[in-house]
Amino acid sequence: MKKLLILSCLLATVSVMGSELNYKDQKNWEFISGKRQSPINIETEKVTEAKNYSKVKINFKNNILEKVENNGHTLDVFSKGESVLDNRKFELKNLHFHSPSEHTINGEFYPLELHFVHQMENGEYAVVAVFAKEGQENKEFQKVLESVGKEEKNIDLEKLLPKKKEYYTYLGSLTTPPLTENVEWYVLKEPIEVSKSQIEQFNKFYIGNNRKVQDVNDRKILFVK
Amino acid sequence: MKKLLILSCLLATVSVMGSELNYKDQKNWEFISGKRQSPINIETEKVTEAKNYSKVKINFKNNILEKVENNGHTLDVFSKGESVLDNRKFELKNLHFHSPSEHTINGEFYPLELHFVHQMENGEYAVVAVFAKEGQENKEFQKVLESVGKEEKNIDLEKLLPKKKEYYTYLGSLTTPPLTENVEWYVLKEPIEVSKSQIEQFNKFYIGNNRKVQDVNDRKILFVK
Repeated sequence: MKKLLILSCLLATVSVMGSELNYKDQKNWEFISGKRQSPINIETEKVTEAKNYSKVKINFKNNILEKVENNGHTLDVFSKGESVLDNRKFELKNLHFHSPSEHTINGEFYPLELHFVHQMENGEYAVVAVFAKEGQENKEFQKVLESVGKEEKNIDLEKLLPKKKEYYTYLGSLTTPPLTENVEWYVLKEPIEVSKSQIEQFNKFYIGNNRKVQDVNDRKILFVK
Repeated sequence: MKKLLILSCLLATVSVMGSELNYKDQKNWEFISGKRQSPINIETEKVTEAKNYSKVKINFKNNILEKVENNGHTLDVFSKGESVLDNRKFELKNLHFHSPSEHTINGEFYPLELHFVHQMENGEYAVVAVFAKEGQENKEFQKVLESVGKEEKNIDLEKLLPKKKEYYTYLGSLTTPPLTENVEWYVLKEPIEVSKSQIEQFNKFYIGNNRKVQDVNDRKILFVK
């Protein structure tokens, strides 16, 4: 597969660089996709410190009615809110969970990964990913676990975020079908804490609902302090 | 092809919504791509006025040494500059030309379309597209036409932009192989003018180097005043 991609890439380069680009035969033009998939392993020694990015700003509308649903492969929390990501407003669409984490840091998994899925006015997705490690109980996560199947509950989503908002950012995809690319990832470096019991409670719903890490290929992974 | 895409889309939706998502068989997950290609026809009655976008800000470093090259399917101008697009800095990589235009407005072509190709820190592309209609001669475009094959020339790229910077924006692709998606398009509404003779001069290099318009599918096209 990798060899095939490299070959396609070479062929595409030749046809772009040379005079081979035949506008009368557009149907046979090479289309390369699938090289920007998520999740990935982040090698912290290889990331580049970003120059032009700003902090993640999150403004979730807490103390409203949320819905927690079991969709057959994860728990979904539907709530309202918006985040400013790289100077643009994104609307929060959904929060869901993976066990163990989908992204790995230097090859290591966290017990859980939270995905705050956002969408911009033009339809583009951005996901803020938060790792959870074993530690103190998180009261808001307990509300999520106990609200499954119930219609609504007040959950303060901002208490599911770490204090420090340093992040890794790269271009990826959705991690479930249709695996759409064009997704901006904001993976927060600092994890939150949840208790051992809470991890076990989540794992009674789902364990192993993590997509395998995908090739980074030629993508840049930036780090924003 | 269209039927196949709709079918794939339905299948993918079923597998996402239901409990069919099998994490032990990830290789067979459906990956949908190729639905966000460029160029497109922009139907001005169907565009949505954007709420959160800001004006295109362009700062090309003029009066420097440019290179104008004939790459076998268009003329390339290599210069320096940066643009602020939707509140983020993008670096200018290249300016090139299509005859007739690649994008159409309500089904109508312009004689030429200029593509100012930019790239962001994370590798994402953004293209500012400028239409040219027949009218007064443009001195800077004349410099481009007369510099082909020569190594360098001072060209004031900002004189290849219209005064009004209103634009249509949508998520698309490169219009030559590898046709990579994840490209932000900023199509300026107001055309610039070039003379009839200049269009003819360009057409001696290339005519018909426009990719056919692609299906819009479920994309939103926004208009920013």
